[in-house]
Amino acid sequence: METGQSLSFDDLKAHNRAEDCWVAIGEKVWDVTEFLNLHPGGPDVILRYAGQDATQAYEEIHAPGMLEETLAANKFVGHILPSNDIPPKSTIDEAAAAEANPRPIARTPSSMELPLQIPNVYEQPPLHSLISAPDFQEVASHVLTPKAWAFYSSAATDLVTHTQNKALIRRLMFRPRVLRDVKEVSMKRTILGCESEAPFFVSPAAMARLAHPDGECALARGVGSQGVLQCISSNASYPLSAIVKAGTKDQSFFLQLYVNSDRPKTAELLQKAAALGIKAVFVTVDAPVPGKREADERIAAEAVASAISGAVASNDKKGGGMGRLMAQYVDKSLIWKDIAWIKKVSGLPVILKGVQSAADAIMAAEYGASGVMLSNHGGRSLDGAQPSILVLLELHRICPDIFNKLEVYIDGGFERGSDILKAIALGATAVGVGRPYLYSLTYGDGGVEHLTQILKDELETSMRLCGITDVDQAHPGLINTQDIDHMVAESVKHPYIQWRPRAKI
Amino acid sequence: METGQSLSFDDLKAHNRAEDCWVAIGEKVWDVTEFLNLHPGGPDVILRYAGQDATQAYEEIHAPGMLEETLAANKFVGHILPSNDIPPKSTIDEAAAAEANPRPIARTPSSMELPLQIPNVYEQPPLHSLISAPDFQEVASHVLTPKAWAFYSSAATDLVTHTQNKALIRRLMFRPRVLRDVKEVSMKRTILGCESEAPFFVSPAAMARLAHPDGECALARGVGSQGVLQCISSNASYPLSAIVKAGTKDQSFFLQLYVNSDRPKTAELLQKAAALGIKAVFVTVDAPVPGKREADERIAAEAVASAISGAVASNDKKGGGMGRLMAQYVDKSLIWKDIAWIKKVSGLPVILKGVQSAADAIMAAEYGASGVMLSNHGGRSLDGAQPSILVLLELHRICPDIFNKLEVYIDGGFERGSDILKAIALGATAVGVGRPYLYSLTYGDGGVEHLTQILKDELETSMRLCGITDVDQAHPGLINTQDIDHMVAESVKHPYIQWRPRAKI
Amino acid sequence: METGQSLSFDDLKAHNRAEDCWVAIGEKVWDVTEFLNLHPGGPDVILRYAGQDATQAYEEIHAPGMLEETLAANKFVGHILPSNDIPPKSTIDEAAAAEANPRPIARTPSSMELPLQIPNVYEQPPLHSLISAPDFQEVASHVLTPKAWAFYSSAATDLVTHTQNKALIRRLMFRPRVLRDVKEVSMKRTILGCESEAPFFVSPAAMARLAHPDGECALARGVGSQGVLQCISSNASYPLSAIVKAGTKDQSFFLQLYVNSDRPKTAELLQKAAALGIKAVFVTVDAPVPGKREADERIAAEAVASAISGAVASNDKKGGGMGRLMAQYVDKSLIWKDIAWIKKVSGLPVILKGVQSAADAIMAAEYGASGVMLSNHGGRSLDGAQPSILVLLELHRICPDIFNKLEVYIDGGFERGSDILKAIALGATAVGVGRPYLYSLTYGDGGVEHLTQILKDELETSMRLCGITDVDQAHPGLINTQDIDHMVAESVKHPYIQWRPRAKI
Amino acid sequence: METGQSLSFDDLKAHNRAEDCWVAIGEKVWDVTEFLNLHPGGPDVILRYAGQDATQAYEEIHAPGMLEETLAANKFVGHILPSNDIPPKSTIDEAAAAEANPRPIARTPSSMELPLQIPNVYEQPPLHSLISAPDFQEVASHVLTPKAWAFYSSAATDLVTHTQNKALIRRLMFRPRVLRDVKEVSMKRTILGCESEAPFFVSPAAMARLAHPDGECALARGVGSQGVLQCISSNASYPLSAIVKAGTKDQSFFLQLYVNSDRPKTAELLQKAAALGIKAVFVTVDAPVPGKREADERIAAEAVASAISGAVASNDKKGGGMGRLMAQYVDKSLIWKDIAWIKKVSGLPVILKGVQSAADAIMAAEYGASGVMLSNHGGRSLDGAQPSILVLLELHRICPDIFNKLEVYIDGGFERGSDILKAIALGATAVGVGRPYLYSLTYGDGGVEHLTQILKDELETSMRLCGITDVDQAHPGLINTQDIDHMVAESVKHPYIQWRPRAKI
Repeated sequence: METGQSLSFDDLKAHNRAEDCWVAIGEKVWDVTEFLNLHPGGPDVILRYAGQDATQAYEEIHAPGMLEETLAANKFVGHILPSNDIPPKSTIDEAAAAEANPRPIARTPSSMELPLQIPNVYEQPPLHSLISAPDFQEVASHVLTPKAWAFYSSAATDLVTHTQNKALIRRLMFRPRVLRDVKEVSMKRTILGCESEAPFFVSPAAMARLAHPDGECALARGVGSQGVLQCISSNASYPLSAIVKAGTKDQSFFLQLYVNSDRPKTAELLQKAAALGIKAVFVTVDAPVPGKREADERIAAEAVASAISGAVASNDKKGGGMGRLMAQYVDKSLIWKDIAWIKKVSGLPVILKGVQSAADAIMAAEYGASGVMLSNHGGRSLDGAQPSILVLLELHRICPDIFNKLEVYIDGGFERGSDILKAIALGATAVGVGRPYLYSLTYGDGGVEHLTQILKDELETSMRLCGITDVDQAHPGLINTQDIDHMVAESVKHPYIQWRPRAKI
Repeated sequence: METGQSLSFDDLKAHNRAEDCWVAIGEKVWDVTEFLNLHPGGPDVILRYAGQDATQAYEEIHAPGMLEETLAANKFVGHILPSNDIPPKSTIDEAAAAEANPRPIARTPSSMELPLQIPNVYEQPPLHSLISAPDFQEVASHVLTPKAWAFYSSAATDLVTHTQNKALIRRLMFRPRVLRDVKEVSMKRTILGCESEAPFFVSPAAMARLAHPDGECALARGVGSQGVLQCISSNASYPLSAIVKAGTKDQSFFLQLYVNSDRPKTAELLQKAAALGIKAVFVTVDAPVPGKREADERIAAEAVASAISGAVASNDKKGGGMGRLMAQYVDKSLIWKDIAWIKKVSGLPVILKGVQSAADAIMAAEYGASGVMLSNHGGRSLDGAQPSILVLLELHRICPDIFNKLEVYIDGGFERGSDILKAIALGATAVGVGRPYLYSLTYGDGGVEHLTQILKDELETSMRLCGITDVDQAHPGLINTQDIDHMVAESVKHPYIQWRPRAKI
Repeated sequence: METGQSLSFDDLKAHNRAEDCWVAIGEKVWDVTEFLNLHPGGPDVILRYAGQDATQAYEEIHAPGMLEETLAANKFVGHILPSNDIPPKSTIDEAAAAEANPRPIARTPSSMELPLQIPNVYEQPPLHSLISAPDFQEVASHVLTPKAWAFYSSAATDLVTHTQNKALIRRLMFRPRVLRDVKEVSMKRTILGCESEAPFFVSPAAMARLAHPDGECALARGVGSQGVLQCISSNASYPLSAIVKAGTKDQSFFLQLYVNSDRPKTAELLQKAAALGIKAVFVTVDAPVPGKREADERIAAEAVASAISGAVASNDKKGGGMGRLMAQYVDKSLIWKDIAWIKKVSGLPVILKGVQSAADAIMAAEYGASGVMLSNHGGRSLDGAQPSILVLLELHRICPDIFNKLEVYIDGGFERGSDILKAIALGATAVGVGRPYLYSLTYGDGGVEHLTQILKDELETSMRLCGITDVDQAHPGLINTQDIDHMVAESVKHPYIQWRPRAKI
Repeated sequence: METGQSLSFDDLKAHNRAEDCWVAIGEKVWDVTEFLNLHPGGPDVILRYAGQDATQAYEEIHAPGMLEETLAANKFVGHILPSNDIPPKSTIDEAAAAEANPRPIARTPSSMELPLQIPNVYEQPPLHSLISAPDFQEVASHVLTPKAWAFYSSAATDLVTHTQNKALIRRLMFRPRVLRDVKEVSMKRTILGCESEAPFFVSPAAMARLAHPDGECALARGVGSQGVLQCISSNASYPLSAIVKAGTKDQSFFLQLYVNSDRPKTAELLQKAAALGIKAVFVTVDAPVPGKREADERIAAEAVASAISGAVASNDKKGGGMGRLMAQYVDKSLIWKDIAWIKKVSGLPVILKGVQSAADAIMAAEYGASGVMLSNHGGRSLDGAQPSILVLLELHRICPDIFNKLEVYIDGGFERGSDILKAIALGATAVGVGRPYLYSLTYGDGGVEHLTQILKDELETSMRLCGITDVDQAHPGLINTQDIDHMVAESVKHPYIQWRPRAKI
């Protein structure tokens, strides 16, 4: 397969059209003409590099070997001779190097010459000086590339839901109990049949490679050493098998799923997941279309402006942020009865990720889901959607028996052990932690491990200070929710529902 | 008519008094002595230019040809010879030029000599880089003239209502439903018998020419191409006929109406509107007198200070902002029974724009209005008036059956597709969008079109993420209003009403 | 009386002790040894100038002639010869000069030599450019002396009540009514039997001379021309008679009263007031001791630090702000039954200024007061006291019939015509405006008149926009109080009152 | 005991391991090998100085003579010869010097050479210019060492509870009563059988020596002169006996107690306290483990980073702030039945400090406590715990009769006399004031005395302005709690408690 012809740059440049499209990745040239419309991110991002070297853009997002796994062998055209015209391919075995000495990609000098002296350069602080999740965010805001920072940190339009997710958790107050023996504390919890050392797990998030070359593999190693579970995004930078392999022997994983408009592809993915020992499927239901993440789209707009082909931009009516690109294959027609199909194809328990109302939690139970994950996609989907913690309280108010029928998970704004304890006390089985884990990746798996230890330590301290020694003892009586109770919806239907909408729904 | 005498500047200067007042507009000199008291903006603004060249001030606000349409032919006195004493008239065919290359008036160098190098000059970003209504506002704050920016952006006194209009909409939360097939979405709605591609329209706003030479004509072209409706201000810069002509053949318009103290003038306007095919009349009821817009009035105060005749200022007890000037002809005695007269004279459905309480919505139905527009004039009328969205909720609480009797429209603070969806779900037929459209005019009709696409895209995304495929499916159950429910009045009368006012009301 | 001996500065310096204390005011030297303990502001402030020239400090606060009126003729010791050692007395007839050309004292160069060029000097804007009460405050913050600004603008400790006074008024919302004939509007109201052109009056405030040489006389002239009433502070800079004389022939006044521990002095004052035609007495009941106004006290602390005799400071345990100084004579033992005495001695109606609860409003009616003024001394007395507007709502909730028994006045945070309308609609007879009038004094009586016109214009506009034409038509139904209703106390006793305090009260 | 051998620095350096550890304090060398594991602050902080001079670090925290009292005489190894290698021991009699001229340790130049000119050096203002507790905080933020400031001012994680403690007190409003005779006022209160001149006392806080060399002794002298009580921390810098001796003859003290895992040590301490005449024991129940105080831990992290032995840091998983270090000996297994043991061993009344719910107040009464102190450790324990003032209101709502069974104390955020009055009116017997007293120590006992006078003056003023003359007259009717009533829990169990936790609790 690697014995193709030798090519010059002029050879490459001749194939720079949608109907005849070659790109160089490292020293190899590939014919991607047929692949253009199969690319999960859509054809436009590839076309920007038609007839050119795409190494840097490719490696920023995709794991090594992902190309070979995706394209048929006969799409390999040949080798190109290194010259001064293009930046030499990085020859480092990145995965190995990263393991030995985690090096956040954002700090790697690009192929452009650096000025001799950079004033006010940010020096990434040593890992042991970071003592909280917000510390990791602070570091990430400096060391990530603008594109990665925009993609991870952005949320929909005005960030109302993103901001309120966190703000409302903070307005819940503890009612700690005293004079209990809290010498020994257990944080263990069984999550969908898997033992976990703590009642939280890595919430799925796409494209971890933007933060570190090892991407999701570093996440797997970092939480694996701490006995904590990971839910892998179906938009991961690495193939599912590589991530699972990066973990320890007994390490359990879940898979987040965007259902593809091309259903057989989804079936294939689910069967592969089952074969790899994945324990459950978290089907994303809150993003039939992507939200409008303006920070993300602005970065894309700038990139487009500087690209050669201005024509791309003018077709790009809805903005070209990574969020929009990656969502192009998602099936907008997914409906309740499809849950049964997913269960059957995968043979795995199904959790609906993105439930945002008591009404849908009730339907989830009716349609055979094993659980729901109360989530608004970290505020990235519909801005203005009620914060997850309000939905958790809505369940108590409208359908308290749902806790006996479904496992209830939650994410969105949780970044402290005490945040996690609040959700557990209010009935959640476990809490998903998303962005903080991506930010911890700027230190590779060591950062992931360190963040996990911090969250555990904070949770343990919070439990002791609440007078409990096992997460199973947590209960609503430990929480004063009064400050936000007035914001919780009181019935499936709105009190103003006597007014009739124009169409049946 | 254009064959009058040739005049020198000294001839012009001799007629510089209220009793004998000439002004030059371009090369033509007009006798405006009798017109002074008929000027909608009052005599003072004209008197500042008595015996002088008024071209610049005139063109900033009035459309070409408006003078000829307004004054009798015998008021044309003659031509003045161009000289170095006055700035030469712009010879560009403005309308045509603007169409080819929209040029916001604010960036046009004035007749004063510009310095050779302007440091830190603001460069208007390319249209495609704007991705939201707030982006347009940001640009407008830079490229509009201070006077135009003050007039558009200002609101009454302390901006409480203006600020809360938007803030309260943001405090409404969505309760999105999931797992519905949202592949195909329709945003179509019938508004007062007119088909609209979306449930929003251009709220009437005066003097669009301050933002762009094409003024309301550019608005008509921009929304016409998108199938969206426009309500034309009776203080428009262009004659009604010109605006209607600027649209496409089937394009529908509404007319906003300030009733003139001189009723026959209003009758004349209404008959002209009916003849032009206007579909409905939005009678403004929240501004028998103009609110106190301090930013607007400060600009006016500065202008007065630099004017030649200081005497104007001392008579001007109540400030001279454009808002105050333009409202001088408005009838302060308009009462409920006049609604019938307006209907009869125009033969058109009447909407009351500026209803701010359930009590008046009920009266609107009794007095034969076809609908109400819940509005506080964008916070420009009475500062402290309750935000429009609270009035919408007040209707649900106090008189929910009103939705069966009247069409309910709303404006004030709506600048996102998600904002619009909230009002629709709570029973509004359509939402008026005001300032954002004025700001979009800084890019001419292209900006108007682009803004319309953005709002449609945001609305479509919000609908899908709420699980609905037709605006008619929107219903209150999709909205969590709990955070502001306590601010909604509970009865037509206040709970403290047992206390008796001193006079009957 | 003015024929005393000629004195040298050494003669003066010899009398620099509490037991033998002379001071020079202008060219006259007075023996104030016996007066020290009669000084309303206490002896310490005089002792700082013992044996010295006290002209500047004296004139800053006291009106010309106040000394002659206060001291017996035989306390005049003699004339001192002008020399280069002391600043020459200003020889201008201040009252006359101020009338011709109001000159805020703060801008007067002190006796210290001014540098030739002052960079960034603040230029007081022309009066006609001020369009609101906050504009006057802004100007005052620049042109008043630090001491005057601190005294006027300060409030107790953390400014909570001061800030909330205004904030809560702003959270009341209007529910405007539309389509009423509002061409003619009357703002007239009868206040304690006096005709007023508007339902607001000048709230009493001490020491107006700090803002302008004409002090309370300028206030009298400024509001007199506008038909608005003034309540004169018993700590006014000018004698009561001078202020009354400054007004027009028919102008009515009220007197604010601090009852003196030395009751005969109070009796004397009340009889003088009655003789001068004062119409009512506002007895201050919210300040048996002065509040702790830290800004005021810090200025005093600095002054002390720079004074010669450090001994003063060490005795001054409670700080020496002007507020504390002026309150030294106030009777801390004033009780309910004293109301009858004040009525009897003065023969005038009595209003209790500073009522802060429904319980005391009820008692006021029982003890024969004609009215109450809901006030917390502009937040200057007890910080944390509930804002006046909450007390007004408390009356509606707890004792709505009190409005039939008492006139209800209110002040604290009112600076807009719309603020005033809110209180009137909720049952107040009239609203006191305090600080804004002091700030307007920086322009002399012209400023006072201009501020009055602004408030009237704002009120008139607000009434029209609410659909009413007479203040007597205002009623609670025009106001949406829901946003703050939850803050209104529900009974005379607190719901937690089942807990018993340790002592009977 | 002081006749040990003469030692060189090389002798000292040879004993630099955990198994053989000497340190020099001043000129004396001690063998602390066996003491390492007995050190309340843990072995690590000592090991940082193994084989070295530890004088500066030791004296910063420990009182003179504390070492001699703690170590057996045979642990004294000998004298070391002063040399240029180590800084000479300060030879000043610190206690005496501090009394004469209080000198905050933070302003003492360290042994490092100071630069000749320090720009922008902070000059500590004279004591008499400070007029409030916040003034003392401002000064302390400048003159304390970063370590001391971090330790005192820090609170747990996000400072939510710390911030809300104060914020919610400020949202309580007074309903002052007027026209009472308030000439004579008594603030006296009996606190646990001790006469106090005011209803507040010094809340226990550790390590006062960080602020002043005289530490807790200066506190004792400062409040003793004012008749105010002090609760001594069991982590005081001085021995209990020294502090008691520093007070006046009749001065009463309380002791705060952390129960030691080594119970006999606690028994010894309690018996010593009883023998010294301590009047009551405040058992801390809200800190079985220390909270996570990030500011404190960051300072520690920096110190570690600059220490020689990096190995310490890597073992230090949970951060090494002073809070964590000092808490190492605290018994995590303390339970309700231990209250009886503490009462028996000490023979003293027991107050539970750190009760945070009505449920535990009820249990406190059942288990024989004399009182509870509603406290969340100044927000330093569990961040998010409900503010103390909410707990006080919770008692009224859930178990109002508890006030008849227990004395109720409170602390957390009280820094004004008016703050104190609010708690007293709502049923607290007395209020603890913590941080402000530590900050006042930057002026030695003079500062403590001055702060006490300020608080008394503020309280007296507030009482008078509320119309009461004795703290025993204070009652809930004086307070409007409506603004925060909705945040008060309504039952021992949460309304959502129908949901069952997984484990019995």
